[in-house]
Formats: sequence, structure tokens, C-alpha cells
Amino acid sequence: MRVLGIDPGIAIVGFGFIDKIGNKVVPVQYGSIQTEAHTDPEVRLLEVYNSTVQLIDKYKPDAMAIEKLFFNRNVTTAFTVAQARGVMILAAVQKGLQIGEYTPLQVKQAVVGYGKAEKKQVQEMVKLFLHLQTVPKPDDVADALAVAICHAHSAVLMNKMNEVHKR
Amino acid sequence: MRVLGIDPGIAIVGFGFIDKIGNKVVPVQYGSIQTEAHTDPEVRLLEVYNSTVQLIDKYKPDAMAIEKLFFNRNVTTAFTVAQARGVMILAAVQKGLQIGEYTPLQVKQAVVGYGKAEKKQVQEMVKLFLHLQTVPKPDDVADALAVAICHAHSAVLMNKMNEVHKR
Repeated sequence: MRVLGIDPGIAIVGFGFIDKIGNKVVPVQYGSIQTEAHTDPEVRLLEVYNSTVQLIDKYKPDAMAIEKLFFNRNVTTAFTVAQARGVMILAAVQKGLQIGEYTPLQVKQAVVGYGKAEKKQVQEMVKLFLHLQTVPKPDDVADALAVAICHAHSAVLMNKMNEVHKR
Repeated sequence: MRVLGIDPGIAIVGFGFIDKIGNKVVPVQYGSIQTEAHTDPEVRLLEVYNSTVQLIDKYKPDAMAIEKLFFNRNVTTAFTVAQARGVMILAAVQKGLQIGEYTPLQVKQAVVGYGKAEKKQVQEMVKLFLHLQTVPKPDDVADALAVAICHAHSAVLMNKMNEVHKR
């Protein structure tokens, strides 16, 4: 199963493709979609959508895992990110992808085993799980890989539960 | 100029098309896009997007006017509406429409002449401006027509300002 992890944003969207092979996870490609601050907001939305569609077409994931938004002190920014999140989910559902949504707490729990883990711990675990030489930068990329790993682990868990059911 | 007014939502999206002819506004078509609560959130987003695209293709507006979101006590609902707003703006920008965003205060100011006007006053003015027999229902439809009228008035104002500039 190939998973596209997304750390939603409007200036920087982190993305990471991983393959789940048995109980292992392997990195495929990762990076960021970036839009310019001086561009019209609606054009930035279009750019995020088009880039997401291109990435899905190129790497053909089976699922998209995306972070849930939590309340941010800056409401305007939070709404802008929610709009960008909307167009990315749209791209995924148009392409027939399975969609998983996870809170930051769920991601930390899945990757570090501890819901209150610090950002740095999550990044180190991402590096370890994917056998990377360095922590991917910017942070949004490591976060995207973390949510992809979270989805892969959840999928492993669901498969195990299904196996138990079948017995 | 034909304007599509939108009152964003996920369960009910109000829409209203009006034509601005000189300084008058004339109703073209209005109604609502509705999605079912028991449907997957990503499928509801897709339905809102597809319906918006169909409406634009059918009525061929020049502009989309859409209400800005204000902070709602229910953050989850606000984020869900922001995501739906994102896919509607995407549809508009993909179709090359001009996009206008207005706060509820700006809409009330433009339609009633008073930023703190009550909902009922806005609805009565929408009925009056568009020579309708009754106030359109549900409220979301009247709100969508109000934001369309707001955009048409702003456009009239901008044209007048341009004329002054040209002298």
C-alpha cells in the first residue's frame, strides 16, 4: 500500500509518499508544495490543488493521510489552511483515494508511542523508521511523513483486527 | 454583469444568480445545494464542488461573491465550512470568474445601509431589490442573493470611481 501523507498549509504544504511493505515502511518521495504570499488567495488555492493532482498522478498512492486542524489563535490563518485542506481532500476523492484524518495527538501516539511527544522526537522517529540520513526539512515535510506512517500503522492494526475477526 | 452569490456551508449552500443591468439588479436563478449528514465528509465536499461547477457551467456568471467566515463557537463546523468554501472558490477560479469576498457587516452595509441590520431587514431588502413576491427560503438562499447584490453594488461603485479617475 502506498500512502501520501499531507501536512496541510497554504504557504507550505508538506507531502510524503511511503510504501508499506509487510510491517515495514519505505520512503518513496517527499518534499513541499509552496505558494507565494503576494499571489491572490484563490490562485494559491488553485496551485495547491493542481500540485496535489500532479503528485497523485505521478506517484499513484492508494490512500491520503492528512492532519486534522486544531484551533489556532490566528483564526484567519486557520480558515485559509482549512480551505487549502478542502481542495487537497477534493483532489484525493476525485482520484478515488482512501482518506485518513488524524489529530496531531494520534500522529505522535503512532510514531513515538506518546501523544505529548515533542516535535524533535517525532522527527527523529520519522528518520529512524524510514532509514533516512537526516531529518527532512522544512518541518512540514517531516510532519507529512509522520502522518503517512501513522496511517500505515493504523492500516496494519486494522488488518490484524480483520484477521482476528476472520478466525 | 452576472454575479453568483454564495452563502457557504456543507449541509446547505445557498446560491443566487443576479444580473446587474445598469444600476438595477435582476434575479436569474436561486436555490440551494444540499448534502446529506450521513454521507462521508470527503464525498460531501465533492458534491458541493460538482454542483458548483454545474451551476457555473449552466448560468455562466462573470463573478462569484462569497461571504467571509467569521469565528464560530463551533470550531469543527467552522473548519468544515471553510473546506467547502475552498472547493467552491477553486471551482470559480478554474472557470476564470472574478472573486469577491465580503464580511457579513459589508453585506448588511451594502444591502440595508446599516452594518448592524437584522437578518429580517436584509431579507426584506433582498425581496425589494429583486422584486420578489416572497423572501426566498431557506435563509441561506436570501443570504446568497444579499452577497450577490453587495458585489453588484461594489462593482457599480468601482465603475464610478474609475470614471472619476478617467476624467
